[in-house]
Amino acid sequence: METLKVIKIGGNVIDNPAALETFLKDFASIPGAKILVHGGGAIASATLKSMGIEPKMIDGRRVTDAETLKVVTMVYAGLINKNIVAALQKYGCNAAGLTGADCNAIVSRKRPATPIDYGFVGDVERVNADAFAMFLAAGVTPVVCAINHDGKGTLLNTNADTVASAVAAAMSKSYETQLVMCFEKDGVLYDKDDPESVIAAIDAPLFETLKADGRVAAGMLPKLSNAFDAIKSGVKSVVIKNSAKILEEASGTTIK
Amino acid sequence: METLKVIKIGGNVIDNPAALETFLKDFASIPGAKILVHGGGAIASATLKSMGIEPKMIDGRRVTDAETLKVVTMVYAGLINKNIVAALQKYGCNAAGLTGADCNAIVSRKRPATPIDYGFVGDVERVNADAFAMFLAAGVTPVVCAINHDGKGTLLNTNADTVASAVAAAMSKSYETQLVMCFEKDGVLYDKDDPESVIAAIDAPLFETLKADGRVAAGMLPKLSNAFDAIKSGVKSVVIKNSAKILEEASGTTIK
Repeated sequence: METLKVIKIGGNVIDNPAALETFLKDFASIPGAKILVHGGGAIASATLKSMGIEPKMIDGRRVTDAETLKVVTMVYAGLINKNIVAALQKYGCNAAGLTGADCNAIVSRKRPATPIDYGFVGDVERVNADAFAMFLAAGVTPVVCAINHDGKGTLLNTNADTVASAVAAAMSKSYETQLVMCFEKDGVLYDKDDPESVIAAIDAPLFETLKADGRVAAGMLPKLSNAFDAIKSGVKSVVIKNSAKILEEASGTTIK
Repeated sequence: METLKVIKIGGNVIDNPAALETFLKDFASIPGAKILVHGGGAIASATLKSMGIEPKMIDGRRVTDAETLKVVTMVYAGLINKNIVAALQKYGCNAAGLTGADCNAIVSRKRPATPIDYGFVGDVERVNADAFAMFLAAGVTPVVCAINHDGKGTLLNTNADTVASAVAAAMSKSYETQLVMCFEKDGVLYDKDDPESVIAAIDAPLFETLKADGRVAAGMLPKLSNAFDAIKSGVKSVVIKNSAKILEEASGTTIK
């Protein structure tokens, strides 16, 4: 089985032009089949504000009304996605930017309006592995933003972490797939105040212990749940690591 | 040789939601290999204004400074392109939205800053026919916006008419290619004030006569020059027609 890396980057890289450039140069040099999934960062909120629209958040999640959907589509699928693709081309990586609508790659379902109406927000329903396989077979690296569609003509804003794990899960039927979740720290820290306390590997029992201890940063828990879900869906391994260290195979926290 | 239609739509369709929806429904039903190229319309200027940026034009052409490039990338490659793709998916046409950066499909050269500095504006240098052929072979319809790249990491804003004819010319090596340029009239009018005076066919000598006469609308002349260039580059036929009549094979003006 051919190996595949699905690598996800978020706002900490997207919002820092120098870090993004370094990351993309590193990413371009990774050999073999790979897929990049990117989040949005702060540019969407800044763009909304420049247009006089106040970003709405509930419990840290963006409420995507019709105007906000237009702006996140512009920023994620246009500005960020196409600049990443152009930069990867410069570094010799033949890339193609995708939303879930392109090639019908990812179909989402609009989240129910109760108890909280998040607007045009989707939950991933189905990943079309054949669409991604077409690009990979041609030596093209898909660059995926977290805008999907419902198959009925409506675009939906989706969480980039769950897009990355859904893509990795779908591809694991045909590829030995590693999911790499990048962020600003070197891995999952045993003590959130000690940047060197990286836990090399976490299995299910240790995850239960860490949850009970309350030592792991709260924001890390959904990422870890997501990682275990990916493993259950057939992904070979999940690594949580620093986006500045993607070429260092030994770095980060491996989930198994 | 398999046949291919390269169909170009501009602002008159993009700016009219009802006309766009009808066009996309019609387009989705066209059998066989096809590529859609779309322009930008008035949304980019409206978005610039909503962000407090005054659109700059010289002789009817947009000056694309760094901020304007960001906005046209957002609007053309994000908002317009992805909504077209989602609508085509709804109508059963498996589409994929592309800039020239995606799959390195279209490489442009930044236009020299003299005599007029149009900023980040490109002229098409090379179309990668293999990139389009990959999609067509998989039954996927490319939807192309007029944002290209220079291969060195910079996106460039390009004229959609010339993108359409360059794509048609490149594809004509492997496909019997028809280029369809859609606009708001039924074809090239012999008398610009008489909407029924459509000229069914124009060859090179008639084009010279029409130019000398001065009866054809001035805005039509670059479209016709562009069409003759496409024919010289191997495109089988060019049809200039109403975007509301793409399913009527006999309508419009054929260039030969």
